[in-house]
Amino acid sequence: MSAYDDIIQLALERGFYFPSCELYSDSSAGFWEYGPNGVKIKNKFLELWRRELVRRDGMLEIDGTQIMSKKVFLASGHLKNFSDPVVKCKKCNSSFRADKLIQDEVKMEVSERLQSEKVDLLIKENDIKCPNCNGDFYKSERFNMMFKVEIGPNHDEAYLRPETCQSIFVDFPRIFKVSRGRLPLGIAQIGKSFRNEISPRQGLLRLREFYQAEIEVFCNPQKLDDLQKFEDVKDTILRIYDKQMIEITASQALEKEILPNKLVAYYLSLLVNFFNKTGISNKRTRLRRLSDDEKAFYSSVSFDFEVDTSFGWLELVACNYRSDYDLLSHSSTSKANLHVMDDEIKVLPHVFELSLGVDRCIYSILEHSYFIDKEKDDRVLLKLKPYLSPVQAGILPLLKKDEFKNKSQMLLSLINKDFDVFYDESGSIGRRYRRLEEIGTPFAFTIDHQTIEDDTVTIRYRDSMSQERIKISEVRSFLIKSLCID
Amino acid sequence: MSAYDDIIQLALERGFYFPSCELYSDSSAGFWEYGPNGVKIKNKFLELWRRELVRRDGMLEIDGTQIMSKKVFLASGHLKNFSDPVVKCKKCNSSFRADKLIQDEVKMEVSERLQSEKVDLLIKENDIKCPNCNGDFYKSERFNMMFKVEIGPNHDEAYLRPETCQSIFVDFPRIFKVSRGRLPLGIAQIGKSFRNEISPRQGLLRLREFYQAEIEVFCNPQKLDDLQKFEDVKDTILRIYDKQMIEITASQALEKEILPNKLVAYYLSLLVNFFNKTGISNKRTRLRRLSDDEKAFYSSVSFDFEVDTSFGWLELVACNYRSDYDLLSHSSTSKANLHVMDDEIKVLPHVFELSLGVDRCIYSILEHSYFIDKEKDDRVLLKLKPYLSPVQAGILPLLKKDEFKNKSQMLLSLINKDFDVFYDESGSIGRRYRRLEEIGTPFAFTIDHQTIEDDTVTIRYRDSMSQERIKISEVRSFLIKSLCID
Repeated sequence: MSAYDDIIQLALERGFYFPSCELYSDSSAGFWEYGPNGVKIKNKFLELWRRELVRRDGMLEIDGTQIMSKKVFLASGHLKNFSDPVVKCKKCNSSFRADKLIQDEVKMEVSERLQSEKVDLLIKENDIKCPNCNGDFYKSERFNMMFKVEIGPNHDEAYLRPETCQSIFVDFPRIFKVSRGRLPLGIAQIGKSFRNEISPRQGLLRLREFYQAEIEVFCNPQKLDDLQKFEDVKDTILRIYDKQMIEITASQALEKEILPNKLVAYYLSLLVNFFNKTGISNKRTRLRRLSDDEKAFYSSVSFDFEVDTSFGWLELVACNYRSDYDLLSHSSTSKANLHVMDDEIKVLPHVFELSLGVDRCIYSILEHSYFIDKEKDDRVLLKLKPYLSPVQAGILPLLKKDEFKNKSQMLLSLINKDFDVFYDESGSIGRRYRRLEEIGTPFAFTIDHQTIEDDTVTIRYRDSMSQERIKISEVRSFLIKSLCID
Repeated sequence: MSAYDDIIQLALERGFYFPSCELYSDSSAGFWEYGPNGVKIKNKFLELWRRELVRRDGMLEIDGTQIMSKKVFLASGHLKNFSDPVVKCKKCNSSFRADKLIQDEVKMEVSERLQSEKVDLLIKENDIKCPNCNGDFYKSERFNMMFKVEIGPNHDEAYLRPETCQSIFVDFPRIFKVSRGRLPLGIAQIGKSFRNEISPRQGLLRLREFYQAEIEVFCNPQKLDDLQKFEDVKDTILRIYDKQMIEITASQALEKEILPNKLVAYYLSLLVNFFNKTGISNKRTRLRRLSDDEKAFYSSVSFDFEVDTSFGWLELVACNYRSDYDLLSHSSTSKANLHVMDDEIKVLPHVFELSLGVDRCIYSILEHSYFIDKEKDDRVLLKLKPYLSPVQAGILPLLKKDEFKNKSQMLLSLINKDFDVFYDESGSIGRRYRRLEEIGTPFAFTIDHQTIEDDTVTIRYRDSMSQERIKISEVRSFLIKSLCID
């Protein structure tokens, strides 16, 4: 089995994630949901993101609606440009993303932005037929990837947002004003976005409904190197890939002009420091500089934070210097003046963005944490950071007798409100340890004969399998200490 | 100004919440978003809900997609029944919710389930005209309140869920299986739901896109009084309204048959205990028993948890014993067998539901916490529970000098990752205190001349305005202690 298959099997069997509406077998691809263990790891991951980026930097977080006015997407360009080329078979009615189809059949790089005439020509020249039934295709069309909805009895046109950042741009004037903000100001948002993909990929990697955690840093373009707090992170080691891989500190990267300014270097460093705490192996990550062909037309410099997975390099965070593209578009469509004062000078802020795909991060953390222990009966374990583990503590009475249950309940009621605890009394103690290891539980507390005598329990550690005794009254402070983030 | 006006003004000016897409003035009603202070109080409220209900009871939490298959809503009955009567003016094209219109014009109680012929008759009999232009109406229609979306290039029909509980029902078989669940089993979900209201109300009270926190307890209908854990909450005092108000313990309510069984009594008690920790005044809440006319047809017993606001009694949580209505509907549409084993007997579980409207709770907490201090310059303060306050600590250097800033930074870096802290150096110290009180910050730490000498700061308490000195090194443990939930 591939690593992907291992993870998907674990996800399905242990309630990390699974397809939406699976009771109805015809349900559409690209919709997955989080089960109990998935919700817990996702929430802890997002809490870590808040801690290491939002709170650390003093950013402001908002939570905007997912249904947004048509005018927002007129201004942003999504109504006109956010589309993929699609072809439909005349015989069996199957639809395909044209650029991917040509790419697969002709083994050439094809841009998704290819014009319709060019698409039709390539299909004709290469005699490409429907992969399902060998039929011919209708002329290609552009398929807009936004989901449309109609509001109220007058059917006003609106859209599910295809990216969370649009809420941040349109809310910027109010947030800046009511927070008495100063540039640079980071505004962050966690939330769902929606893209009507033509052919969504398996699992959490390309979804039609997905979580983003986005940060838009509004800054004065004249002061990108005027950033005192850069000093705090200047020694952060960055792995930058630009035709070749180099490992370099943030300040060296600035000196050698590998990074354009302190502001970009500072936020990329925060991002790397954050990922170093997720359990994703640092040596299997990189900041890849995008070529001019790859990056969005509004971005003057773009880096993808990528992680090495069993699929190859996977983009987790898009980091784009979007300049004044967004505020300018919204200002011209809404006729609002979006300039703000920075040290008594009027500025239309530029934006540096860190756009993180949450679901892909969760997948990557699971893949990097997954181990099969050859030394010990091929036990499967997730070596998750304790503060990211869905279940932090197991409580296991050795026997099903009342006195064991009572002591277990005593421990449970001490810790179950503030920690994620799983109480398990069924099966052999070995099997119960296995079940906990499989979902990454770092600590198992066993109630045994000695507990009845002296109110101590054993702690068993997931990775080393070593054990030690501790008083029940000390378990709470043990957990607080062990779940601290350094 | 009314209490509502006070809250909305505070919400707008201090970034609790505000209309979505407000840059585009034509944006539709019923869409509001949370600003930085709103996000923080909402997240803390939800964390308290998780602590006091989900974790305490050992429930499982899922996070499902918002776009769901058409078949789900065929089964649930929403496609057929989830509609309001609407009338449209022939002259000015305005649309109105017919039942509300008749109610306003004729001052009679009208059900939203009134048949179209009856609506038309009432409009004719009472000669009701368009309130905008005095025009006549077209015949009334039923307006389905679900938002429709189309998936993929074949335009497959799907809907934004109108309630989060449908994800829980369709996921029940997998969750029960992979968690090796036992009845009773609570499955919880926090997430967005969507209702295309004809005329949404102001603010957070009736939204088209809103947050729910729902719990569905799956249980064996033969064992509703077989619940050991009821003992833990039997002395909870419940305020039950059923034609008259009574205050009674959970166990007395059972004895007197005011509540039907231990399971219902247990979960209502957990709910009341939870709300007692939110800062909503207990004496201004009640569990109102719904009459047969009011409750949903599938519910054998229904209570609304209501709170007294400046609008009168507002429903925060709908508590319905839904029996086997949902699992039966999904089982018959999907042809899946949804029975589970309970102590070696096959059971189709019944469901008791606690469906909480998050946005209304946030509004109610703000209204109940809002005080104008007549003793002290009419200062406005939010007397929020410290663990629900958006900002937990202010850091205020008395002077703008470097030595004051440095000490402030020292304190900031000790606490800003793990607590919500606001650093403020502008304006008089009095005005800075006011700004913190207005958003409910319980503690303000001031860096003054003595700080420079001995590394102590003053703590100022929001409610009493009293002050005391504390070492900077002790602030962290002071906050941990003061933010504990009892």
